[in-house]
Amino acid sequence: MDRFELIEKLRQKSNEKIVFLVLDGLGGLPKGGKTELETASTPNMDKLAMEGETGLMIPVSPGITPGSGPGHLALFGYDPLQYVIGRGVLSALGIRFPIKEGDLAARINFATIDKDGNIVDRRAGRIPDEINKKMCEKIRQIKIPGIEFFIETVKEHRAALILRGGDFSDKLSETDPQKIGVPPLPVKPLINDEKAKKTAEILNEFVEKVKEVLKDEHPANMILLRGFALHTRIPTFEEVYGLKACAIAGYPMYRGLASLVGMEVIDVESGVESEFRKLEELWGKYDFYFVHIKYTDSSGEDGDFDRKVSVIEEVDRNLDLILKLKPDVFVITADHSTPANYKAHSWHPVPVILKSKWSRSANIKKFGETELLHGTLGIMKSVDLMTLIMAHSGRLAKFGA
Amino acid sequence: MDRFELIEKLRQKSNEKIVFLVLDGLGGLPKGGKTELETASTPNMDKLAMEGETGLMIPVSPGITPGSGPGHLALFGYDPLQYVIGRGVLSALGIRFPIKEGDLAARINFATIDKDGNIVDRRAGRIPDEINKKMCEKIRQIKIPGIEFFIETVKEHRAALILRGGDFSDKLSETDPQKIGVPPLPVKPLINDEKAKKTAEILNEFVEKVKEVLKDEHPANMILLRGFALHTRIPTFEEVYGLKACAIAGYPMYRGLASLVGMEVIDVESGVESEFRKLEELWGKYDFYFVHIKYTDSSGEDGDFDRKVSVIEEVDRNLDLILKLKPDVFVITADHSTPANYKAHSWHPVPVILKSKWSRSANIKKFGETELLHGTLGIMKSVDLMTLIMAHSGRLAKFGA
Repeated sequence: MDRFELIEKLRQKSNEKIVFLVLDGLGGLPKGGKTELETASTPNMDKLAMEGETGLMIPVSPGITPGSGPGHLALFGYDPLQYVIGRGVLSALGIRFPIKEGDLAARINFATIDKDGNIVDRRAGRIPDEINKKMCEKIRQIKIPGIEFFIETVKEHRAALILRGGDFSDKLSETDPQKIGVPPLPVKPLINDEKAKKTAEILNEFVEKVKEVLKDEHPANMILLRGFALHTRIPTFEEVYGLKACAIAGYPMYRGLASLVGMEVIDVESGVESEFRKLEELWGKYDFYFVHIKYTDSSGEDGDFDRKVSVIEEVDRNLDLILKLKPDVFVITADHSTPANYKAHSWHPVPVILKSKWSRSANIKKFGETELLHGTLGIMKSVDLMTLIMAHSGRLAKFGA
Repeated sequence: MDRFELIEKLRQKSNEKIVFLVLDGLGGLPKGGKTELETASTPNMDKLAMEGETGLMIPVSPGITPGSGPGHLALFGYDPLQYVIGRGVLSALGIRFPIKEGDLAARINFATIDKDGNIVDRRAGRIPDEINKKMCEKIRQIKIPGIEFFIETVKEHRAALILRGGDFSDKLSETDPQKIGVPPLPVKPLINDEKAKKTAEILNEFVEKVKEVLKDEHPANMILLRGFALHTRIPTFEEVYGLKACAIAGYPMYRGLASLVGMEVIDVESGVESEFRKLEELWGKYDFYFVHIKYTDSSGEDGDFDRKVSVIEEVDRNLDLILKLKPDVFVITADHSTPANYKAHSWHPVPVILKSKWSRSANIKKFGETELLHGTLGIMKSVDLMTLIMAHSGRLAKFGA
């Protein structure tokens, strides 16, 4: 019996409210003996850590650094090695495109080619979004009978392509040759399969037409296609857990990931206080509130240890906005580590606090990676967290007599 | 996606150097409150434990005592329950026989039979190696058309048999009846399969001929065959990890295990200082240096607590020879525990230190089983260690966007 089958079997109703606060990239590495989290002054979170269940979580498996997709899927209880979301689909989700099962998504890069058709610039001089939008509009004229095309601006030279209405395959090679001075590659089927061949033909025809439509433009006179991904519907949060869930997240990627699992995505300005106030405003309407704070990750990626510390402190200062709502289950954790000195996502386990009226306590003195080694949850896998949350919120019956 | 598929997908180049020091059977049990490792004075390893990632590892699964084969395969990242290396093959590897895919290997015991063909001594009085070699030479005269036979002395009454050139099965019963006063058993196919039947016939014909050739010898006038194992090639270290690896190990078994995964086996005299000096000599030529110290295990098997302590101290005293090379990733661990008071391999988790510039620290005061319970790695599985090493040496890209 897998996790979802077990949960489905044991699931029961409850009115308890869950706040699931994700500080993106929270986990860190020490500078002068202390990590970002250990350096930050966090009296509110320290109290939660002292009273609640605590530990560290491995997002995917030991040594594996997760992207935002796998990191969040694991937090939502979806095994990230089973539910693999392709780049094209993530890109479409990131701009909140209402992708459907069976859609084929790809990432578009606008590029510049010379009169011989060779690539001069793989990013078309990073054109501004405005030019990108105009180019997308031009491309939208293209028709191929029986297939619906959606072309949407992402940012700079990047756009999203979604095909609908065919029986597509995503076992296709990309057209970006990853170098200049050569023409774009054709899309080729990666497997000997009729669907893949047919999809490649459609895409090559589309690219030819794009080339024709853009031939008098500059610098964006060509497109490169990457990250083909067929969208397969995955079971929603409501189907798996019976939870009515909403996502309070300012950034497109996380809104996309939340909508992928069927959460209701709330319009909110990105920021600690604005997101916490939005939560307050919505309080009572949902069972599960996913609140996503981006800046712990972005400061980590920028290598800015001090800024990451201050973002953590900002979260702690505003925590009363959540605490006064008295959520039945309050979880604070991260999708992955982004140590400031590593300047990137990393594989290191992430801190977690789970506070409910049924939590055990390990008398943790400070919310931090080193102290949490002594927590009640030990070192667990992120994918198991949702089952624990279900239990703590009274939503799982006994297994077996 | 399994571990190897994931690693293949994420693997990237790096020049970082890894030293992988295995103190065979390092884990112990307390005598007067402290284990062998806890009793030993190990200032160098204590410093590494304080600075690096630490924990305990379960070699196979809880309660399972590994032989050297599974213990090392797990350390090398090969699931020992999936990659099962038969005894015949291990025996051939142990004497560095260049075994090939499709070879059938078995262990030979020289035995003594009486004039009625009944076994009098299952070990032929543990004949000296010299006699063993003479007997092997005699047996080598035997010819069976189409099949190549290799017969190699191992030690005392033990030899290795390797068959090459046929389409063999290893689903065969052994000929050792495990008692005296009865004749050796014939080889029988264990499954209803043509290959197994044919292989049994060849082996029975071979044994008949051996009996004939040795009939005037004493005490080694017969052979018993055990541990039939077909050799299946397993993916090499270079194929799985992209690592150019060498093995600095004085003992045949470990050289054999290293060659099984495609490491280059270095000629070296067994011993702490000689092996560490060999490492120094080779420094820069490989990505991954597997250094194997045998005496922690052999003193444990002899039940000699104090000798095991002094071997550990000898390693620590010589550790500067490695430290001064400044490996990017330095791992110290064990294939299994061999507690001196248990006098055998045991199932207890083994200590591990992993030091790199990306290690978290848990401020461990002493490298020892009890302290390591508070380490940053918690209690993990040995088979996951290589993925962590890949991450710490910059050899794994991010999983998913």
